Amino acid sequence: MDDRDALRAASRSIHGHGDVPPARMLADVAAWCEERDVALDRYGEGELIEAFEAEVAERLGYEAGRFMPSGTMAQQIALRIWADRAGNRTVGMHPTSHVELHEQRGYAHLHGLHATLIGPEREPMLAEHLAAVPSPLAAVLTELPIREAGGQLPTWEQLGELKAVAGERGIPLHLDGARLWECAAAYGHDYAEICRGFDSCYVSFYKGIGALPGSMLLGTKDFIDEAVVWQRRSGGNLFTLTPNVASAAMQWEGRLAKMPVYLERARRLAEAVHEIEGVRVLPDPPHVNMMHLFFDLDAEEALAARDRVAEETGIWVFNWAGPADVPGVSWSELYVGDAAMEVGDDEIARAFTLLVAGT
Amino acid sequence: MDDRDALRAASRSIHGHGDVPPARMLADVAAWCEERDVALDRYGEGELIEAFEAEVAERLGYEAGRFMPSGTMAQQIALRIWADRAGNRTVGMHPTSHVELHEQRGYAHLHGLHATLIGPEREPMLAEHLAAVPSPLAAVLTELPIREAGGQLPTWEQLGELKAVAGERGIPLHLDGARLWECAAAYGHDYAEICRGFDSCYVSFYKGIGALPGSMLLGTKDFIDEAVVWQRRSGGNLFTLTPNVASAAMQWEGRLAKMPVYLERARRLAEAVHEIEGVRVLPDPPHVNMMHLFFDLDAEEALAARDRVAEETGIWVFNWAGPADVPGVSWSELYVGDAAMEVGDDEIARAFTLLVAGT
Repeated sequence: MDDRDALRAASRSIHGHGDVPPARMLADVAAWCEERDVALDRYGEGELIEAFEAEVAERLGYEAGRFMPSGTMAQQIALRIWADRAGNRTVGMHPTSHVELHEQRGYAHLHGLHATLIGPEREPMLAEHLAAVPSPLAAVLTELPIREAGGQLPTWEQLGELKAVAGERGIPLHLDGARLWECAAAYGHDYAEICRGFDSCYVSFYKGIGALPGSMLLGTKDFIDEAVVWQRRSGGNLFTLTPNVASAAMQWEGRLAKMPVYLERARRLAEAVHEIEGVRVLPDPPHVNMMHLFFDLDAEEALAARDRVAEETGIWVFNWAGPADVPGVSWSELYVGDAAMEVGDDEIARAFTLLVAGT
Repeated sequence: MDDRDALRAASRSIHGHGDVPPARMLADVAAWCEERDVALDRYGEGELIEAFEAEVAERLGYEAGRFMPSGTMAQQIALRIWADRAGNRTVGMHPTSHVELHEQRGYAHLHGLHATLIGPEREPMLAEHLAAVPSPLAAVLTELPIREAGGQLPTWEQLGELKAVAGERGIPLHLDGARLWECAAAYGHDYAEICRGFDSCYVSFYKGIGALPGSMLLGTKDFIDEAVVWQRRSGGNLFTLTPNVASAAMQWEGRLAKMPVYLERARRLAEAVHEIEGVRVLPDPPHVNMMHLFFDLDAEEALAARDRVAEETGIWVFNWAGPADVPGVSWSELYVGDAAMEVGDDEIARAFTLLVAGT
């Protein structure tokens, strides 16, 4: 452990649900399994995994769900199925999709798909953006909320219009729901209402839910049956996924119940922070319980300032900051979860004030 | 839990390392992580995972290793890299390769590869089999030992000849080392000697080692650098793999040390069992600490007999039995590990005698 790790460990993080060491995560999962006498699933067959798949599918309004190791795998599989069904290798997606930016273009190198990017980078995908693409598309993938734009959501009306345009053209819509859990509180609509009109959907369990790695792909029964074959081809049908499933199942309901609280806190925090000269918030107010923060510091200064703030206040304001597109400006992502709940608004505002003031 | 599960739970299994419930597996891993103050790796970066990769690579004589969620993923990646390097989509493999039989042909559907099957199904691949394939091959994959033939190994001389023929033709050899750990005791040569001449290699940690799911791909540094890109494309670069790595790292050395004991026991067991009328052993004597057992019972009879034997003796002789190619004959696989160590030779022989006698 170097000095920075030690400093971080000694500080109170305000990001996500805090740093939980693996020993504690696993001990908690072990105790939960012990209480319920959980048996290992074998290659996806088992009481716990099948019950959890059914439970999530029902909540989201799908016929079936399949637990998979990662969203990267789940989403490529979804696009591949739609492309094979359409006899068309071209899929549409938002330009900042995880699939486009962070997966080394597996969709092309593994699945032979081509991407048409739809709409501008810093806005959610709208009906008018899709309408501007006249070519046939095997499917359209969009994310709710758009992570790379600070967690922005289209309005409820805009979302309905997008679904309507896709429906009229008969294009299957796939929902990148990496942070879908954060949307219900924001929209004031339940998960099934949000998902209605999305023909397939992926959700994640290690982000907002705070579990071990794991994802779920959802759709009709026949869609998921096809996905299971692709999961095996992709090397994702593991001997057992029980630790990952248990970690998700034990935390899912509890975290969902907290999402409205996290959102309210995120809005209050943004209000406290956007007053500070040299700090900007995107979107302001936040749409969900995450936001991007921009600092009038270059990235190196921001990291040095973070360490200084931790020494002075005991608060760890972010794990990472990088250069923004504007010279001399850096940015970071703040996900408001359990960690921020342990720190007061005034303390957080003071920490960010110190961060940008000391230069 | 149905009656059969209850019967199984109440019996002493002789297969593998026995049924360890997830609660115990995870509690053990948690305790091990706690003792060592293990931190989560993030997307494969972390002290524990990198140290374990280096340790296994050194033991096997490779420059580098990369922990991956599954062997299915690791081996397809290896074949893809060799194919891209050769500019040739055709790879050679043993007809009972996992890649050919149990992965829904991901190598074709995801990687656009074609397989040329080399040699007969029930024998290890030999130099003469490879020599009989004159076409250019991007790589050749073979397994040590051949699981689908009861864990057969080529002799040490035969293995050397295969390596030599591949080397002369400049064909990269890939080792499917799903059960490589079982080979050193059998050959009386260490792992690095066995792997020498194999340009890449995959090993597994959830089978003989008894850990949570996990595999490692090994090769030169530049080969593994390429593999990391493919791992991300394939959806195998998980947020963290620490539970899986810890589970492997904590058991690896200990299990390797026991392999000679398991082998000796497997040989003794086979001797005791092959005397029984109506039971056949393949190979006899076993080459490694596994074997296939054939029973003069059809599969349905065999399963009913297993339950009866469990009721009478408290011994659970196999989890699964299926029909053999010969009518009225069924077969099962026996992996000799910790479970069999808890049961006497005479008890096991008696259990198999009862199994075939009662019909």
